[in-house]
Amino acid sequence: MSTQSVAGLQSEVNKLRHELQTLTVDNHSEIAGDTIILANYLIERLRQLGVTQMFGLPGDFNLGFLDYVEDSDAIEWVGNCNELNASYAADGYARVKEGSIGVITTTFGVGELSATNGIAGAFSEHVPILHIVGVPSTSQQKTKPMLHHTLGDGRYDAYYKASQQFTISQATLTSASSAAAEIDRVLTECVVTARPVYLMLPTDLVHERVPTKRLKTPLNCEPPENEEEVENFVLDEIVKLIDEAKQDVVILVDACSVRHGVKHEMEQLVAKTKLPVYAAPMGKTAVPETYERYGGIYVGSITKPEIKEKVESAKLILSIGALKSDFNTGNFTYHIPTNRTIELHSDHTKVQFAIYHGIGMKRLLPKLTARLENLHVTASQISVPHFTLPIPQEDDQIISHTWLWPRVGQFFKPKDVVIAETGTSSFGVLDVPMPKGSIFISQILWGSIGWTVGATLGAALAARDLGLGRTILFVGDGSLQLTVQELSVMMKTGVKPIIFVLNNSGYTIERYLHGETRKYNDITNWNWTKLLGTFGGIEGTSCQSYTVRTKDELSALLDNAEFAKADKIQLVEMIMEKNDAPRGLKVQAELSGQMNKYGS
Amino acid sequence: MSTQSVAGLQSEVNKLRHELQTLTVDNHSEIAGDTIILANYLIERLRQLGVTQMFGLPGDFNLGFLDYVEDSDAIEWVGNCNELNASYAADGYARVKEGSIGVITTTFGVGELSATNGIAGAFSEHVPILHIVGVPSTSQQKTKPMLHHTLGDGRYDAYYKASQQFTISQATLTSASSAAAEIDRVLTECVVTARPVYLMLPTDLVHERVPTKRLKTPLNCEPPENEEEVENFVLDEIVKLIDEAKQDVVILVDACSVRHGVKHEMEQLVAKTKLPVYAAPMGKTAVPETYERYGGIYVGSITKPEIKEKVESAKLILSIGALKSDFNTGNFTYHIPTNRTIELHSDHTKVQFAIYHGIGMKRLLPKLTARLENLHVTASQISVPHFTLPIPQEDDQIISHTWLWPRVGQFFKPKDVVIAETGTSSFGVLDVPMPKGSIFISQILWGSIGWTVGATLGAALAARDLGLGRTILFVGDGSLQLTVQELSVMMKTGVKPIIFVLNNSGYTIERYLHGETRKYNDITNWNWTKLLGTFGGIEGTSCQSYTVRTKDELSALLDNAEFAKADKIQLVEMIMEKNDAPRGLKVQAELSGQMNKYGS
Repeated sequence: MSTQSVAGLQSEVNKLRHELQTLTVDNHSEIAGDTIILANYLIERLRQLGVTQMFGLPGDFNLGFLDYVEDSDAIEWVGNCNELNASYAADGYARVKEGSIGVITTTFGVGELSATNGIAGAFSEHVPILHIVGVPSTSQQKTKPMLHHTLGDGRYDAYYKASQQFTISQATLTSASSAAAEIDRVLTECVVTARPVYLMLPTDLVHERVPTKRLKTPLNCEPPENEEEVENFVLDEIVKLIDEAKQDVVILVDACSVRHGVKHEMEQLVAKTKLPVYAAPMGKTAVPETYERYGGIYVGSITKPEIKEKVESAKLILSIGALKSDFNTGNFTYHIPTNRTIELHSDHTKVQFAIYHGIGMKRLLPKLTARLENLHVTASQISVPHFTLPIPQEDDQIISHTWLWPRVGQFFKPKDVVIAETGTSSFGVLDVPMPKGSIFISQILWGSIGWTVGATLGAALAARDLGLGRTILFVGDGSLQLTVQELSVMMKTGVKPIIFVLNNSGYTIERYLHGETRKYNDITNWNWTKLLGTFGGIEGTSCQSYTVRTKDELSALLDNAEFAKADKIQLVEMIMEKNDAPRGLKVQAELSGQMNKYGS
Repeated sequence: MSTQSVAGLQSEVNKLRHELQTLTVDNHSEIAGDTIILANYLIERLRQLGVTQMFGLPGDFNLGFLDYVEDSDAIEWVGNCNELNASYAADGYARVKEGSIGVITTTFGVGELSATNGIAGAFSEHVPILHIVGVPSTSQQKTKPMLHHTLGDGRYDAYYKASQQFTISQATLTSASSAAAEIDRVLTECVVTARPVYLMLPTDLVHERVPTKRLKTPLNCEPPENEEEVENFVLDEIVKLIDEAKQDVVILVDACSVRHGVKHEMEQLVAKTKLPVYAAPMGKTAVPETYERYGGIYVGSITKPEIKEKVESAKLILSIGALKSDFNTGNFTYHIPTNRTIELHSDHTKVQFAIYHGIGMKRLLPKLTARLENLHVTASQISVPHFTLPIPQEDDQIISHTWLWPRVGQFFKPKDVVIAETGTSSFGVLDVPMPKGSIFISQILWGSIGWTVGATLGAALAARDLGLGRTILFVGDGSLQLTVQELSVMMKTGVKPIIFVLNNSGYTIERYLHGETRKYNDITNWNWTKLLGTFGGIEGTSCQSYTVRTKDELSALLDNAEFAKADKIQLVEMIMEKNDAPRGLKVQAELSGQMNKYGS
């Protein structure tokens, strides 16, 4: 609980400082009484945060707001097919557009509740999303008529209460006078904590005018300063442990290093110290996988032996942004004792068994790097396994997992965004070294199947915005069925992902967990190559679909320059064996299944 | 609050009585110590309630339970494409299968939260659904490891807390010894209140053995007795008012008459008294629309003039099962003073301004009917308008709403189940007289677009089970996009609905509410007639798709005996004008838009 109260205090300090700044801003250049329509105030704040797209669906209660969005030059409205997909898209967008946020707008009840799973997933995996909900007017909120989209019993606060479980901060705007400050508060929380926030926007307030003045002060989204005395103590402790370990230290990077914006600080540490670096699955590509001191993926007992030995034999592990979930740790099988571990987090630091609340890594890392400036002399001597994945020689033409993943690895290019669905795909891509500047995203902790389809839309839009490379999705047939309609929105928005569909007749990860031959793990086989054409594409012109059944067919396609150019949306159905799976998944599933006591 | 506490007391009494019955059941024929596996206990209870299908998706944490479902002869597992669709299907199933319940099984977090909107809609519209969630084992619930599908912060109760907003009762099974009683409790609440309930089923308890004994006593799902003294008082009051009105009384039936199981009691009242009967939109087909004393749909100021005059000029309105939401009342424009209204509800009665808690209509209605046995002499003299909808003469070939709805009305047959999506379709079908034994379902209060697609699957399965007629869906292009993948599950399960897709290029109801020419109300046009083939059907064999562009084309299709036979799933794309809408929708949207103050 003390973590929460420290975080609460810090956030309060942050908010007050920003309020103070806002109120004392230089007023000379401004005409007193300048005002802006509330909707435009919100849009302007989003523009300041670098938001260029807004996801969601129109619905009664948000239409007034959408007028302003549609008329704005800053934000493009992406009408999604449904709200779950929209929330996944906002999530994918935020992951690729580091430092910015994802935004989804839905309507009261029916719209917002469909997004619940997507928002909860973003909470779980530290992804900043603003969820704007168009709600009945402030007077209706008081009189509580039995409007459509209500529960019929006058509980106008039920959705808000549910949202409290899955968002870090909530605001229900009740008057124009407090609206701007409330918007600033939740947006700041969203960025600083890298978690979703919830904003209720009543139909009548959308058009109200509020002072423009606050907009002159950008939101203060920097994490709070660490308390100097404590920070110095922590730095001393860390340096002492590194010395005691005689520099036999490895760095282990994980998800929160990306989500809490310390990639740059981490790169400085790594470059200056020359310490060996490994990544947990959720931290894959946080450090470039082509970096010479990078040794690959550590995932507890599932780790490849040469990597496992190196990590677990180190005298000290410096872990950055860890999220130690079951699928991110080989089912909690880190063989690293706590007394050999230092953990840096966004809002606390853990040195062996001691926890230091309020000592966040964003501020700590540069100071640590400065304190370790001579470490590289010895650290650069520590050997690091070369992270490669050669293509095995297989005599048959079956597209096996063992062959597939290294083969597509050769297809990846610098700056590609690679998205892998929970299950066979995410386990498969893990072992594949990614080129420089490429980004790997997957939902390993939350693990909601179907997520990648919406996420690919959002990621591809963000990638286009940032001038990144191709967006490449790996998704199983079972997962694609949950969210398939979003392919249509990809075509509408003109993004051009390459979508590899693993056609293996069902929910493979579940077959491994339990029920290998059960009918409930079967799915209906679709005509996968007809999807794009059905959803509004024109085969050969605006889209292209392929089926590959053999290694040679897939290789030929991957080697085809026209295909690799990705100048239209492409879908590749890959026929695979029903019961084949990547190595990591098989081990993970066995461990997980035992824990669930499925046994008979 | 007092309603809730009375209801709470009643439910407690109910539960205790059932417990008592269960424990005192005759034990002679039973081998002492007979036990059954918990999963099978639950399945057996569902069988006793007439459940034949279970909706949902497999996911880690529910796979063990699904083994028992798959092995059971009583319940068929319907694997859906996603959880929202599954919840809609359970809802549609429950609506058609009156007296039974809908059942959906999902997995912890990712699965259950995707169903939130569907469950909330069932709450809003009084539809009984059991939501079974496979959750981590009882020991994991205590130790709270960072498992996949968790929020990463140890809050294992977050989903449960959210579910409390949208279900009437919840149970988290914690031990085999209390599990059976807990299951019985939530199932009873589900049926008696006609609302969704939530059941957490840990992986380890699924296999535990519990005594079979309780199963000998069927669940007591009857509503509690009314307190005699109060009930007599209420009956006197009602009869007195009817006398004072000099028998100038009309009956107005609404949604809750169906949902709370008084169709039979209501039919007795109507048949014996010969009073004129009208229906609110949500009560359509609660009384057969071919009944000679039935006058049509009353929906406040949107009502057709001849019906409006008859209802509003009556000296007394006897309302049965009202749900007075905006879209069910012409935006709250009932021109009926409270002092001329008697309202019968499932758990209370309202006579003019007086509310009588705990006096429910299921027990009251037969007694009221008995007290009014001579009423028919005078009541049968009151004239009732004939409920018809002639096909208008239009000179062009455009499929207009004015022409479409009466035309498809001629296509309906006795016992058809007709499902209309919120918006143009539901407003359109309202004015169409339905044949005897047919069932109309729509989600008028909750109004979640896309709901009908899942609901059609569930409704069609229930209809097949009950030996009803065809299932016919009317859905707009915009709505179908939200939940389209469920067409695939229809084909998998072999149901054969006729699906009319109103292709009018977007969200028409929203254009009428606000933003007629806005891009956010546009959608991507799909190749609608390719959908069934893409989702696994074989055109001409297992499915058939059509596009109709003119009145003649549609008429020819409707007159085609082969088409009307509905022996395979059929999809009819109807090309319609972008800005056309049924009469009722236009008026409703204007009233609603004003209330939302979209203004400029």
